[in-house]
Amino acid sequence: MTQNIYDDPDFFEGYGQLGRSRFGLAGAPEWPALRALLPEMRDLRVVDLGCGYGWFCRWARENNASTVLGLDVSEKMLERARSSSEDPAICYERADLERLVLPEGSFDLAYSSLAFHYVQDLAGLFAEVYRALVPGSRLVFSIEHPIYMAPTNPGWVIDGEGRKTWPIDGYQMEGPRVTDWLAKGVIKQHRTLGTLLNLLIGSGFRIAHVEEWGPTDEDIAAMPALGEERERPMMLLVAAER
Amino acid sequence: MTQNIYDDPDFFEGYGQLGRSRFGLAGAPEWPALRALLPEMRDLRVVDLGCGYGWFCRWARENNASTVLGLDVSEKMLERARSSSEDPAICYERADLERLVLPEGSFDLAYSSLAFHYVQDLAGLFAEVYRALVPGSRLVFSIEHPIYMAPTNPGWVIDGEGRKTWPIDGYQMEGPRVTDWLAKGVIKQHRTLGTLLNLLIGSGFRIAHVEEWGPTDEDIAAMPALGEERERPMMLLVAAER
Repeated sequence: MTQNIYDDPDFFEGYGQLGRSRFGLAGAPEWPALRALLPEMRDLRVVDLGCGYGWFCRWARENNASTVLGLDVSEKMLERARSSSEDPAICYERADLERLVLPEGSFDLAYSSLAFHYVQDLAGLFAEVYRALVPGSRLVFSIEHPIYMAPTNPGWVIDGEGRKTWPIDGYQMEGPRVTDWLAKGVIKQHRTLGTLLNLLIGSGFRIAHVEEWGPTDEDIAAMPALGEERERPMMLLVAAER
Repeated sequence: MTQNIYDDPDFFEGYGQLGRSRFGLAGAPEWPALRALLPEMRDLRVVDLGCGYGWFCRWARENNASTVLGLDVSEKMLERARSSSEDPAICYERADLERLVLPEGSFDLAYSSLAFHYVQDLAGLFAEVYRALVPGSRLVFSIEHPIYMAPTNPGWVIDGEGRKTWPIDGYQMEGPRVTDWLAKGVIKQHRTLGTLLNLLIGSGFRIAHVEEWGPTDEDIAAMPALGEERERPMMLLVAAER
């Protein structure tokens, strides 16, 4: 099963301090770009793969989705999500994305924010999501960018001329990357961007949009620390059509 | 018009020394991966955008393409290509990819090797190629990878632990990159990978395969210097369907 790092006390504590945990979608700088890939939500049956605190599930309902299924591997996340809403059209369930089973042809939108880089069997997951979606629907997701994930030493380097650079190595070597982020030993699965897109295509999806998120001038004015995200691609946003 | 660096004497001389110039397709390590994206060539009407010495044009005819149009901005390249074959089914013509005009619906395959990163108006070029292809046909091309092209200082850096790393910066800043490669002041056009794919999608193409080329074990055994291409994505190979 997926490493359930979210139920590690250190990780859960640290995660709760992040802007995106405290302020929800408004605390995630990539949210406007991700939202732009979403269809009109009215009357859609939505599944959120890796729902965390449930911020997106609630947003989907506020935007008139008919039902929302929020899935997460972490019981702590699900408890928090359940305690944040009593909307009977939102259902939170525990699920392991490594062995997901969904009812066939029963969703109009699959969404996932920053969860797929933990998944080993992404081909299996995409096949199951494809099966669960109706024709004409979309899978919209964000994932850590492979360039962000690949390096042996994922940290900025200042070059001889004072420039901040991101030191790529090991890009072609796919497989686990272990980092210490909020807790020790967080395992992510590095794949090239090509592999990721080809897995989607191989599952039957049509690539509709690929965005290597970067901050806008307004993002940087509001949060100057985001400026460094102009130097590298950190997050990848994808819309794929079923 | 496109900077015609190929007619610069230094560039032309240096280019002629490259393995891919001297040994043709066999001298290009990415060729087997690019060839795997090509359809069966028999009876196809082929256009090669940036044909150089015409190696691919001749290969296409050897594989029973019915006609091949080789286009290049460099007269020197075209002279060399013309002198290498008297096949009347191959036609070499001078063309600027910035303002390409092709007959509508008259090709079954568009091919390009390492030329598109010189093109400023890639949206215009893709639209014209789409118009020139028949439904069900393919555009297959290689291009320098944006991660290879983006950096201010595109050169390997040895980190504190002796690892070779590729220092990314400026990735989100699209636009010209000036490098000294074979000649001084070679201008390439950096776009993010997302932008490149979205331009194809926006022109009506369906993304069929995206490959960030890396060397195989056999490639490295034959040419150990290729080993460093495991560390970064250097070339991007794309197959798109009309």
